Amino acid sequence: MAFDAIETPFGKVNQIVGGSATYAAYAAANFVKPIQQISIVGFDFPKEEMDEMRSRGIMLDGVHVVKDKKSFFWSGKYHEDMNSRDTLITDLNVLADFDPHIPDSYQGSEFLMLGNLQPKIQLNVIQELKQRPKFIIMDTMNYWMESAMGDLKIVLKYVDMLLVNDAEARQLTGQFSLVRAAKEILKMGPKFLIVKKGEHGALLFHHDDVFFAPALPIEEVFDPTGAGDTFAGGFIGWLAKTKDISFENMKTAIIVGSAMASFCVEKFGPNRLKEVGKEDIDARIRMFKELVSFDIELG
Amino acid sequence: MAFDAIETPFGKVNQIVGGSATYAAYAAANFVKPIQQISIVGFDFPKEEMDEMRSRGIMLDGVHVVKDKKSFFWSGKYHEDMNSRDTLITDLNVLADFDPHIPDSYQGSEFLMLGNLQPKIQLNVIQELKQRPKFIIMDTMNYWMESAMGDLKIVLKYVDMLLVNDAEARQLTGQFSLVRAAKEILKMGPKFLIVKKGEHGALLFHHDDVFFAPALPIEEVFDPTGAGDTFAGGFIGWLAKTKDISFENMKTAIIVGSAMASFCVEKFGPNRLKEVGKEDIDARIRMFKELVSFDIELG
Repeated sequence: MAFDAIETPFGKVNQIVGGSATYAAYAAANFVKPIQQISIVGFDFPKEEMDEMRSRGIMLDGVHVVKDKKSFFWSGKYHEDMNSRDTLITDLNVLADFDPHIPDSYQGSEFLMLGNLQPKIQLNVIQELKQRPKFIIMDTMNYWMESAMGDLKIVLKYVDMLLVNDAEARQLTGQFSLVRAAKEILKMGPKFLIVKKGEHGALLFHHDDVFFAPALPIEEVFDPTGAGDTFAGGFIGWLAKTKDISFENMKTAIIVGSAMASFCVEKFGPNRLKEVGKEDIDARIRMFKELVSFDIELG
Repeated sequence: MAFDAIETPFGKVNQIVGGSATYAAYAAANFVKPIQQISIVGFDFPKEEMDEMRSRGIMLDGVHVVKDKKSFFWSGKYHEDMNSRDTLITDLNVLADFDPHIPDSYQGSEFLMLGNLQPKIQLNVIQELKQRPKFIIMDTMNYWMESAMGDLKIVLKYVDMLLVNDAEARQLTGQFSLVRAAKEILKMGPKFLIVKKGEHGALLFHHDDVFFAPALPIEEVFDPTGAGDTFAGGFIGWLAKTKDISFENMKTAIIVGSAMASFCVEKFGPNRLKEVGKEDIDARIRMFKELVSFDIELG
């Protein structure tokens, strides 16, 4: 949970609420409650935002509010193609001392989503849970592959699913072919792998099975910030709602995550996510269904 | 119909039969016969290749054999990502004087595929047909947008479908958003547009409808040469087989084209295309179906 300053070809915002956990929670709360949030914020994080979260069934017992420090701040500028961006500022602030602990009220949680953070912290969270969750997803990024590959490979052994983008899958394995990279990652611990390809959709790998979910062709991607976290939140929210971790149900979960992400990019920050309800989401999921459905008689 | 020399990270071949029309014809001949080929070759084009084509139902009445010149020759080297390549040599040879005429035996053809060539030549072919085909697809490329945009825009008014890649759709319209680019292209003449995104699949646009077909996640793309032409051949082959040019049937045709393209990239040149039969193709189409099928109850 953090603040972002974002510049895209379509506009600019100097301070808006952001952070992986914010996006993931807003997305997941559409499907299951409570969401048990773990994060750290500073004195400047808006009380209204936290009230908004609580009103949507997002528990904040695990969110540490530091009285004398500022919230994490990220500032970035997107290039014209919206697929790449420059980071202008990263002020760790409270995040420098983040040492999350699981509140008792969160124990027994069945679905755990580990946002992109130091692998050691991700491992600590897993180990603080007295009962192993039914399903653990972890996100990570190239930065940890360069600075903490050893720790990262340890955490991989504890999780059920890894969530990375195509470049990260390649970097983690040294394999250019995504299919080969996936095969290697599935030997590192996770039984499931999602490779996010941004505007080109996402791939789900499990044993020798593959599922592909497209991204919705959108006339204008206004702000891609948080789309990946929103996708993850929608994905695990659907799994937690249905309590079904079969490959078949994960296909649906990916479509749900993609639908949530397609809303996220329509406005700055998580604003659009707060506006949509069940009907909007169902309609968007139907658009995905139409986008890829075809009938063929092989005769 | 031409010769290629191809270098990929996986190997090198100094002379292999290639050319858009070769790939398209081999792909389409799986679905409909005869294929009525229009092309030009030199004295060096192998008689065995032409016999092979004829044996597969590809008519060559419209293929002009020039006795004292060599066939078109292209040489290229693919980069490690296989999505980009450098052209090393382009020897036009016979292609410099290509002035195709439609043999009488081809008149009355219902489905016309115009390969990527000078827009003026594409237009001549359309105008030589005494009866307007039921469906005309044209391929083109950035080179003609830079050197013959005026002619290109004229041909666009005569065709039913344009087939381009994402960069070309953007260049043709000056729109970065593919959805916006598609809307503009659909105002230029064609009622249907396919945007090819290589390993990221293809999009079909018609009015406000969109269909997305993924590319098969392949462990190793051995040689992408001809994949786009093979896709086009499979696409129009399916339309011609079914004689159905509805949007619904085009979805199927795109999957068929994608399946054919997924074979093409497995070996150098059109070699793999010559090996596969109906059972292989049906099995591959089923893989596509599985790749994108999901069930969701919105409850």
